[in-house]
Amino acid sequence: MDPTSAVTTALRERAPLVQCLTNFVSMDLTANVLSAVGASPAMVHDPQESAELAALADAVYVNIGTPSPRWADGMRLAAAQARADGTPWVLDPVAVGATRYRRELVDDLLRLRPTVVRANAGEVLALAGTVGASRGVDSLADAQDAHVAARTVAREHGCVVVVSGPVDLVTDGDRALHVHGGHRWMPMITALGCSSSALVAAACAVVDDPVAAAAGAMGLLASAGTSAAEVAEGPASLRVSIVDRLAEPGRLELGSHVRPGA
Amino acid sequence: MDPTSAVTTALRERAPLVQCLTNFVSMDLTANVLSAVGASPAMVHDPQESAELAALADAVYVNIGTPSPRWADGMRLAAAQARADGTPWVLDPVAVGATRYRRELVDDLLRLRPTVVRANAGEVLALAGTVGASRGVDSLADAQDAHVAARTVAREHGCVVVVSGPVDLVTDGDRALHVHGGHRWMPMITALGCSSSALVAAACAVVDDPVAAAAGAMGLLASAGTSAAEVAEGPASLRVSIVDRLAEPGRLELGSHVRPGA
Amino acid sequence: MDPTSAVTTALRERAPLVQCLTNFVSMDLTANVLSAVGASPAMVHDPQESAELAALADAVYVNIGTPSPRWADGMRLAAAQARADGTPWVLDPVAVGATRYRRELVDDLLRLRPTVVRANAGEVLALAGTVGASRGVDSLADAQDAHVAARTVAREHGCVVVVSGPVDLVTDGDRALHVHGGHRWMPMITALGCSSSALVAAACAVVDDPVAAAAGAMGLLASAGTSAAEVAEGPASLRVSIVDRLAEPGRLELGSHVRPGA
Repeated sequence: MDPTSAVTTALRERAPLVQCLTNFVSMDLTANVLSAVGASPAMVHDPQESAELAALADAVYVNIGTPSPRWADGMRLAAAQARADGTPWVLDPVAVGATRYRRELVDDLLRLRPTVVRANAGEVLALAGTVGASRGVDSLADAQDAHVAARTVAREHGCVVVVSGPVDLVTDGDRALHVHGGHRWMPMITALGCSSSALVAAACAVVDDPVAAAAGAMGLLASAGTSAAEVAEGPASLRVSIVDRLAEPGRLELGSHVRPGA
Repeated sequence: MDPTSAVTTALRERAPLVQCLTNFVSMDLTANVLSAVGASPAMVHDPQESAELAALADAVYVNIGTPSPRWADGMRLAAAQARADGTPWVLDPVAVGATRYRRELVDDLLRLRPTVVRANAGEVLALAGTVGASRGVDSLADAQDAHVAARTVAREHGCVVVVSGPVDLVTDGDRALHVHGGHRWMPMITALGCSSSALVAAACAVVDDPVAAAAGAMGLLASAGTSAAEVAEGPASLRVSIVDRLAEPGRLELGSHVRPGA
Repeated sequence: MDPTSAVTTALRERAPLVQCLTNFVSMDLTANVLSAVGASPAMVHDPQESAELAALADAVYVNIGTPSPRWADGMRLAAAQARADGTPWVLDPVAVGATRYRRELVDDLLRLRPTVVRANAGEVLALAGTVGASRGVDSLADAQDAHVAARTVAREHGCVVVVSGPVDLVTDGDRALHVHGGHRWMPMITALGCSSSALVAAACAVVDDPVAAAAGAMGLLASAGTSAAEVAEGPASLRVSIVDRLAEPGRLELGSHVRPGA
């Protein structure tokens, strides 16, 4: 079975509990995306309970989009628990190049060995030290350079890296898969990238190979985006239709989005 | 007049100010649901101002979905002010069984005597001590057991308990009402349960009997869900249509949702 | 060119980076509105990084809707940095009359000289000291009184004041512009006012005259609302269509919304 179909089916069969420590902007869409695909989201962030919940979770998702010291503590505790338990965890290093505080937090978190890092081109370049600063969350960086940087980051940190863009790349530094599909309005939907990271975490809970899991998760979202674009009139109605489509995957063409990478 | 119609009409006539101390995931939908029915939402949580606002509010709504110590302080202060003033207040004990921190916070809040507790089946079982832990916010627990537990919780804490599910139960431990309606996609809409708790709080501000208020609030949401399902294509478009319908209640069939319970 | 067209075009050409320190309820819609018009939103609030990001931003937007001491520190630092750099910054004093904490925070922020203050009628009256308290975020105050108060506030603090309502007023205490358009469901969309403040900040980054910038931003939103109302069935579908329309401004009638004020 292709990775997209495998992820889609396994999410509905196993309904993984996905702990999310994510930014304030993305909570709504992220939780709705996870619920739509059959996963069970749990937004639990505070140090008082983040490790305790991580011990119960099937996957942990950490996103630094709106960081503060107390949330950072909660993230470190949850990620450390996940690592200790062998639970997959995913890092989304939002705008890592923008401030010193984000760079230091991401350095901390990378030492806890995420299973997957999902980022845009500018963020991957910042992680690789190729550029000093990305400009907010939007990246103008060259996708090709980012793909080279992604392999470097994957090897250095022993993780899978997903670079989202017009064509997504998934690599462990050795193998590479490309994910095609989606629509030009998708980058205008705030937190859709964050939601894709959460979907990657959910997929890692139900598919053993994180390269296949990540590619399948991105393929599922690309498939929903392609289908939703048929009825949407702009980014906001596209967002609504994407969640609708994720909840009814029988209508989606899942098979053609993931292809071998260069 | 049936409770649903009574609540719907009274909300528009009196436009109650409803203070919400709720989780990050649910703020957007909760505020929009309250505005749609004619209430005035005020998201005020910090200890610096939560009691001061509670003294002005017509109802207070406390939801522990994303708890932290400072927010917990704000919740205690607002609930205590509401209790001192005789202002109705509603507790939503999200995922209370999941962590020690949530159980302790809910124990604290129950001592401040909420007017209504609104929860899903797993959370009510956790409150009654029937089960050790619910799995995140989704409950697989048996509805029948939860209805028995709800009466126990209502008697023990002197409050009304609402258990949401395919058929909602509203009970004060003695009387019981059932609320029918809605759609299978509604549990997939993140924070719709939280929003129903806020709606119960708003209803308690305008209808004196909290059993009738809670049943009417749940009936209004069920009615909007049933109607919205006629045009929705999945959970996200259902969410949009539910809020649209709540804002134009003249189009709804309000009368048939609340029925005597067993 | 009229202000609405000038703002709309300049936002797409220059894609300003807009830092937002805004309330939890409004983050989702605010970010999506900014992305739709071509701006780049950056939700960065913590004192650890708020000034550093403000130094990079093209505009800073501060909204006190869900205030707490740490966020207030982040706001003061970002606003001070903006002021030091000559970067435009916009203040939205949500429910300023409701609590002592909000009044003191707004007093602090006004000393940092915002470029524009955007508020509803009740909030402007509270700023002018005309009334003691507004009731939550909804204002029942008389629009005419608010327009007089807006001129007073603008002169006293050396800023532009935008009062939103059925007809918006933009004034620097001397000049005045009115903005027409929109729809009766728009006040029912939570955080649409907050989003308009963010849009004003974005406009100030690309149009030098803050009166024209603010009027153009409000005109763009009014135009999207007027157009979106043709297909909406209530406030939630109106919200979706407004963001859709903002992303495709070629379909909008931009020219007729801003007119000379009395």
